[in-house]
Amino acid sequence: MAKEKQKLQIIPLGGLGEIGKNMTVVRYGDEILLIDAGLMFPDEEMLGIDLVIPDISYLVENKDKVKAIVLTHGHEDHIGALPYVLKQINVPVYGTRLTLGILEGRLQENGVDSSNLRAVMQGDTIKAGCFHVNFIRVNHSIPDAVGLAVTTPMGTIIHTGDFKLDYTPIDGKMTDFRRFSDLGNKGVLLMMADSTNAERAGHTPSESTVGASFDKAFHNARSRIIIATFSSNVHRIQQIINTAVRYKRKVAVLGRSMVNVVNISLELGYIKAPEGTMVDIDNIGNYPMEQMVIITTGSQGEPMSALTRMSQSDHRKVGIVPGDTIIISATPIPGNEKLVSRTIDNLLKLGANVVYGRENGIHVSGHASQEELKLMHNLVRPKFFIPVHGEYRHLVKHAKLAAELGMPKENIFIGENGQILEFTRDKGYVAGRVTSGRVLIDGLGVGDVGNIVLRDRRQLSQDGIIIIVVTMDKTSGTVVAGPDIVSRGFVYVRESEELMEDVKTRVEDALVHCEEEGITEWAALKSAMRDALGRFIFERTRRRPMILPIIMEV
Amino acid sequence: MAKEKQKLQIIPLGGLGEIGKNMTVVRYGDEILLIDAGLMFPDEEMLGIDLVIPDISYLVENKDKVKAIVLTHGHEDHIGALPYVLKQINVPVYGTRLTLGILEGRLQENGVDSSNLRAVMQGDTIKAGCFHVNFIRVNHSIPDAVGLAVTTPMGTIIHTGDFKLDYTPIDGKMTDFRRFSDLGNKGVLLMMADSTNAERAGHTPSESTVGASFDKAFHNARSRIIIATFSSNVHRIQQIINTAVRYKRKVAVLGRSMVNVVNISLELGYIKAPEGTMVDIDNIGNYPMEQMVIITTGSQGEPMSALTRMSQSDHRKVGIVPGDTIIISATPIPGNEKLVSRTIDNLLKLGANVVYGRENGIHVSGHASQEELKLMHNLVRPKFFIPVHGEYRHLVKHAKLAAELGMPKENIFIGENGQILEFTRDKGYVAGRVTSGRVLIDGLGVGDVGNIVLRDRRQLSQDGIIIIVVTMDKTSGTVVAGPDIVSRGFVYVRESEELMEDVKTRVEDALVHCEEEGITEWAALKSAMRDALGRFIFERTRRRPMILPIIMEV
Repeated sequence: MAKEKQKLQIIPLGGLGEIGKNMTVVRYGDEILLIDAGLMFPDEEMLGIDLVIPDISYLVENKDKVKAIVLTHGHEDHIGALPYVLKQINVPVYGTRLTLGILEGRLQENGVDSSNLRAVMQGDTIKAGCFHVNFIRVNHSIPDAVGLAVTTPMGTIIHTGDFKLDYTPIDGKMTDFRRFSDLGNKGVLLMMADSTNAERAGHTPSESTVGASFDKAFHNARSRIIIATFSSNVHRIQQIINTAVRYKRKVAVLGRSMVNVVNISLELGYIKAPEGTMVDIDNIGNYPMEQMVIITTGSQGEPMSALTRMSQSDHRKVGIVPGDTIIISATPIPGNEKLVSRTIDNLLKLGANVVYGRENGIHVSGHASQEELKLMHNLVRPKFFIPVHGEYRHLVKHAKLAAELGMPKENIFIGENGQILEFTRDKGYVAGRVTSGRVLIDGLGVGDVGNIVLRDRRQLSQDGIIIIVVTMDKTSGTVVAGPDIVSRGFVYVRESEELMEDVKTRVEDALVHCEEEGITEWAALKSAMRDALGRFIFERTRRRPMILPIIMEV
Repeated sequence: MAKEKQKLQIIPLGGLGEIGKNMTVVRYGDEILLIDAGLMFPDEEMLGIDLVIPDISYLVENKDKVKAIVLTHGHEDHIGALPYVLKQINVPVYGTRLTLGILEGRLQENGVDSSNLRAVMQGDTIKAGCFHVNFIRVNHSIPDAVGLAVTTPMGTIIHTGDFKLDYTPIDGKMTDFRRFSDLGNKGVLLMMADSTNAERAGHTPSESTVGASFDKAFHNARSRIIIATFSSNVHRIQQIINTAVRYKRKVAVLGRSMVNVVNISLELGYIKAPEGTMVDIDNIGNYPMEQMVIITTGSQGEPMSALTRMSQSDHRKVGIVPGDTIIISATPIPGNEKLVSRTIDNLLKLGANVVYGRENGIHVSGHASQEELKLMHNLVRPKFFIPVHGEYRHLVKHAKLAAELGMPKENIFIGENGQILEFTRDKGYVAGRVTSGRVLIDGLGVGDVGNIVLRDRRQLSQDGIIIIVVTMDKTSGTVVAGPDIVSRGFVYVRESEELMEDVKTRVEDALVHCEEEGITEWAALKSAMRDALGRFIFERTRRRPMILPIIMEV
C-alpha cells in the first residue's frame, strides 16, 4: 500500500477536442506509459502544412521515465507521430502484428530504426514499470485493434481504443465483451472511451452489411469495377476480394498505400485470397474488363490519389472508360466533401457509373454509436470517466451520456490536451498543465513553421504581395535607383497598368515626403512607404496585400 | 407560323454543374429573355476571392436583344450578380415584391440604379418581346418564390425555379400545382427543373415541421434563446416569432443581413409580429434573459458573422453566458462543416446549450426531393427536359429520374454552361457554344484576378516567397550591392539562420558562376539564381517557395 502515496496522472497530449493526434500519458510516480502516438491532417488554415503531430516536450523532458509505448491500432491518428517520437525517445513499442506491420513501413520511409517494436497478440499482457497492460480485442475499421486494461498501483484503467461492437465481424472475432465485463466486475477506477460517434443514436451497422451492398453492385456491373476505400480497412478489402471471387473476377490493387497495406496483410494472413485471384496492375490488360476489379485509394478525393488522377484522365496505368463501375466505399471525412463531389462529377463525365453515398450501404463507420457506448459503460462501470477521441462537442455528448447512465457528474472529466488529471481511489481533479500543443510538419521541417509564418502565408494567399525595392546611397541617404515595384498574386499587372503606375507614384511621393521631413532611418522610411501604399491600395481595391519594402545600400 | 423559322435557344450561362450563379438565356430569333442572375461563393482554391459571377460577355455583345430579366426568387445565387449585370445592361427586371425588396438593398450598396425594377405578383404575366412570362407560385425557403412559364412562338417553356411541394406552408400558400397541371394539359415543349435534391429519396419535410421542433427547444430552454438561421428564410423567422409569442418572449434581431431582411419583410408584410414583440438589440438589457429570443446570422460558421463572433467572445453587443440556449437552424452547406463544428465547440465551451444537427428537426431543405420531382414531371409532362440547378451528379441523377418516368433519353439534355441548346417542336440538339465562365470579384476588382494571380496566391500560400535583390552597375555589369535575401511565409527565420546563410551562399555562387560564364542578360541571371536556389531549397526542405529575383541598376 506504500506505493499508493504516489499519484496517478492522466495527461492527454493529443486527441481531446479534436479527432486526430491521439496521445495519452499515464503516469504513476516516476513511471510513464504512453498510449498511442498519432498524427493529424492539417486544417485548411494551416497553409502548406503536411502533417501535425503533438508537442512532446513533456515526454522528452521526462524521457527516462517513459517505460513503454502501447498502441491500440494501426491508423495514422494513433501511430503516425511515431517516426518523430522515436527519434527522440528510445523505448519499447508494443502493438499487435498488423499495427506494427503498418508502423514498420512508416518508420522505414522516415529512416527510423524499428528494433524497439514488440508484437503482442490480442489477449496478451505486458509489463512496463509498475504498469501491466492487457490488450483486449475490439472491432474497428482495421483488424487487430485493441482496447487496453492498464493495471496501476492505484487501480485499473480501461482505454477502449477506437471500437465498435460488431456481432458479425468479417473475421469472426468480436469485441471481447467478456473481458471488459470481467474487469468491470473486479472494479475499474477509470475509463477512457472513444467519443467519435457519441452524437449518433442507435447502433453502428456491422461491417458485413457492406458485403451485401457489394454483392448488389457487382451484380449490376456490366464491365470493369473500380472500388476506392481506405487502405487500412482490411476487412473491407477482404469483402471486395470475397465478392470478386464469387463473381469470378480478378483483383488488382492500385495506389501506393493500398498496395503497401494489402501486401502486409496478405503476408501476415489478415487478407486471404484464393490462388490466382490477385493480379498485378500491370497485367490487367490480359483480362477482359468484365472480369476485373481494381481496389484503389482516393475515396476522400485526395488530390494526388489514384482515383482522383483517374477521374482527371491523368493516371499512367488506368484510364476510366464508359461502362466502368466505380464504387466509393467511404463517407467523406468532414472537410473533404467538395473534393469527393468533384471526383464523382469528373467520373460521371467520363461515362462511368458511380456508386456512392449513404443510401447504397457501401460504407459503415468503425466507431461505436450511442447504444454501443451505453453497453460499454454498463460492462465496465468505471468510477471515473474521461471521454476521449473526439471534438469538444463529441466529448460533451459522451459525458452527458455517461451522466444519463447514472454516473455522478463530478466523476466525469471533459479534459483538454495538456491538462494533468490526477486520480486517487476516491477522487479526481485537475492538477495543473504540462506543455502541449501542435507541431507542424512542412516538408522536411518539423516545427520550423509557426504562427508568424502561417499568418504571412494567409495574407499572401488572400491578396498577394507588393515588393518595393529602393537603392540608396549610404553616405548621402538619397535614392539612387528605384523605387521598383513588383507584385505577385495581387492583380494581373497587364490589365492593371494604371493602378501600378499610381502605386509607383505614391511610393515616390512618400520618399520625397520623407526627404523633406528629414526622415532617414531605414525602419522609418520602410514604414512610411508601407503606410502610404497600404492606405492607397485598400481605398482603390479593398484589398490588403502584404507590402514589403526593401532598401539596398550602395 | 412564319415566326417558327426562327430558332429557340436555351443558353445556360451559369448554374449547370454547380450550385450557384444561376443564369439562363432564352433566345428566340433576335430576342433574349434572361432568367435569374446569381452569384456563387468561391471555392477554397479561389484564394482571396470574395464572389464569383457568370461571364456575361454574350449578353453584353447582344445587349440590344435582351428584352427583360425575370427573377425566380431573392436568393443570392439567383439575384446576386445583378449589381454587376445592371451596370452593363439596361433592361427591365421583373420579380415579386420580396425578391425586388432584397435586390434593391444590394443595388443600393453597390450604387446601382434600381429604377428598372418592376414588381409582379405570383400569378401575373408579363410580356417581353415575343415572350410572355407567367409567374407561378412555388414553395421554397424564401417567400414569394416563383416558377416561370415562358410562352414562346415555338412553345411553352417551364422553369420551376427553386421549389419544393409544401402541403402545410407557413403562409398557407402552396406551390400552384393546378397551374403546372393546366400548362401540362395544354402541352409544354421544355421544362427546366431544380435538381438540388435529386439524390434524396422521398419527400422534403414541410417547413412547418420545424415549428414543432422550435416548440420543444423553447420548452426546454431555461434562459435566453439565440437562434441562427439563413437571413432569407423568412418563414423560419416567422416561426421563431410565433413560438416566441407563445412562450411570452421578446424577439431581437442581430447581424446586418438578418436586420435588413427582417426589416424589409416586416415592411412588406411577409413577417407579422404582434405589437411589442420585436425589441431593438440595444434594449435587450431591459428584459430578463428568460424572456428573450435573439435571431441572428452565422448558421454557416461564417468568420465575420454575429454567431461566430459571439462564439469567440468577440461580439460588441451580445456575450454568451452559461445557460444560453443556441439553436442552429440550418444544415452546413458542403464546405462549411468545419466552420460550423468549430462554432458549436466554442459555444459549448462558453457553457451554452447548443441545439444542432439533423436529429433535432430544426431545419428542412427548401428543395424538392425525388418524389416531388416525379410529381412535377408528371404534372408538366414536357417534351424536352433540361435538369438545372445542380452539380453534375445532381443533373445526372435528375436526368435518370426523368428517364425512369418514361421520357425518351434523346429528349433529356444534361447541359453545360455556355452551350447553345436549340429546340424545334420535334427535336433538341446542341448547336454550338457562347463565351461563358466565371468572373472573380476580389474587393472592388471585377475580373482583374485571373488564373495567373490565383496560381501565384496558391504557391505563396503553400510555401511562401523568397526574394533576392541584387544591385548591379549598369556599365560594368558587376554586383555593387547584395544579394539580399528576404523571405515571408517560408520558414521562421530566427530558427533557420543557418539555412538562410546557405541560401545566400548559393545565390552568391550562382552570380559568380554567371560572371565566369559571361552571362550578363538580366533574364538569364534571374533564371540562374532561381534555378540554383529552387533546387537547393527543395533538397533541404522539400518545399517550393516562390523565388523572386529582382535586379536593381545603378
